Amino acid sequence: MNVYIIGVGLIGGSLALQIRKKQKDAVIYGIDQEEGHLKKALEIKLIDRGANLDDIADADWIIIAVPVDQSRRLMPLVLDRIAEGALVFDVGSTKAAICESVKDHPKRKQYLATHPIAGTEFSGPLAAKEDLFKGKVNILCETERTDPELLRRAKYFFEEVGMTIRYMNPVDHDKHIAYCSHLSHISSFMLGKTVIDKETNEAGILDMAGSGFASTVRLAKSSPSMWAPIFLQNKENVMQALEEYIANLSSFKDALEQDNYLELFEQMKNANRIRKILDPARHGLPQ
Amino acid sequence: MNVYIIGVGLIGGSLALQIRKKQKDAVIYGIDQEEGHLKKALEIKLIDRGANLDDIADADWIIIAVPVDQSRRLMPLVLDRIAEGALVFDVGSTKAAICESVKDHPKRKQYLATHPIAGTEFSGPLAAKEDLFKGKVNILCETERTDPELLRRAKYFFEEVGMTIRYMNPVDHDKHIAYCSHLSHISSFMLGKTVIDKETNEAGILDMAGSGFASTVRLAKSSPSMWAPIFLQNKENVMQALEEYIANLSSFKDALEQDNYLELFEQMKNANRIRKILDPARHGLPQ
Repeated sequence: MNVYIIGVGLIGGSLALQIRKKQKDAVIYGIDQEEGHLKKALEIKLIDRGANLDDIADADWIIIAVPVDQSRRLMPLVLDRIAEGALVFDVGSTKAAICESVKDHPKRKQYLATHPIAGTEFSGPLAAKEDLFKGKVNILCETERTDPELLRRAKYFFEEVGMTIRYMNPVDHDKHIAYCSHLSHISSFMLGKTVIDKETNEAGILDMAGSGFASTVRLAKSSPSMWAPIFLQNKENVMQALEEYIANLSSFKDALEQDNYLELFEQMKNANRIRKILDPARHGLPQ
Repeated sequence: MNVYIIGVGLIGGSLALQIRKKQKDAVIYGIDQEEGHLKKALEIKLIDRGANLDDIADADWIIIAVPVDQSRRLMPLVLDRIAEGALVFDVGSTKAAICESVKDHPKRKQYLATHPIAGTEFSGPLAAKEDLFKGKVNILCETERTDPELLRRAKYFFEEVGMTIRYMNPVDHDKHIAYCSHLSHISSFMLGKTVIDKETNEAGILDMAGSGFASTVRLAKSSPSMWAPIFLQNKENVMQALEEYIANLSSFKDALEQDNYLELFEQMKNANRIRKILDPARHGLPQ
């Protein structure tokens, strides 16, 4: 089985680790614009060989794990080059644009749109982790447009690596993910910026920053080359979410300015409901 | 040794656990407005006995671990009631107002202003944790106003439980902590609110929310009764920090609206410096 991974970073590399584990006969090829990534991925044996786009005619699986502007550009080129029976899937954080880009492609049914909700704030081949997908959700979009047999095999693999599968149309996916993922990245990036701009003395921050700050600002360590294209490709939804977030912050500031204890209290109490949503099992335990 | 803990919640309770461990002869009294907390703290043996404010004449140590509006109100009443040689310290997240409230008190030198940078998003006696303070920083303010012998004993205890001690004046403390702690709580509370307001279908959020969102929104689970008084007591600094945060978010939104890839990229790259500040040891490893 020949597997080509385009983009051997955090996600592509972590998928490579799983494929090697589950599919003993797999030969894993890596394609990456960055020479350094390819070299490193070979060195740490994420992949067996380097390759380029013109080699993929013999591929059984092609995984596209590059920034979303590049995957949209690559997707038709990849479909053009693959043999019958090959499966292509991408793992990007936006789904509408990429589905749109191949909707009339004659090989559309060989493509599966996926978004594994998994990641860390790190990137590159060294960030690949064996257990990255375990217990996580993978959102599949427009599965009715994918060949049922190819879909079945992909689902089998995702379930085998421990993921739960959810189905959603790409437009809804992009709308909801703007709130649940893209917005929290921006809130974290800008929190990092605000604190750094203020605190020129880095030792000072380090001393006063507790685990709470570290948790809230963690995503500010994420890769700009990955995230700038995501925000731009999901621009309308992200702007909407950002506007609502800014309005909420402003109204909190107004309540503070007016010494309105009750309003501050109510707004936080309301936000506390996130407990029940994120930790349903833990709800009711230590408050 | 008689220790009175006013407020047997997360911080007061965790201190009780440490005192019991380090000071075998300690009798620990709990004072708490909430009957339920007192009962629970007795039940799980955080404290030996319940007490009230009029009992503290025989105290060696009094720890004030209640919301900051209450500690400011209580502080002079506590000092009024203690014997010579007793030490009082508070653990609140704001320091200027409380120091101001006792600056002319005849027993000022028996008070030590402290802020252990430690906590979780949980509260109440069940949230108490034995290792809460290990490896954390404790900021002491105006130590020159505390009796040197009482200061020495307190420092010995804080170091014994694994804390590193830093010194700061209360005004600087409040200014910096607004950025490093208070702002990240508001950013998280309002992120939670924005997402909940949008996503009425809670199962939908649960599915799409990855570990990144969980990390950024974690502090939105924090106690409103603890945080409303903190924001109000540090109002000027918190409003300043919030204004800068909102301005940064708005400028990010503008760059997005204008499809300005480079500006988005630069802003995120700039925020990435938080890596070096928060994980100096890890810097240079997986990017």
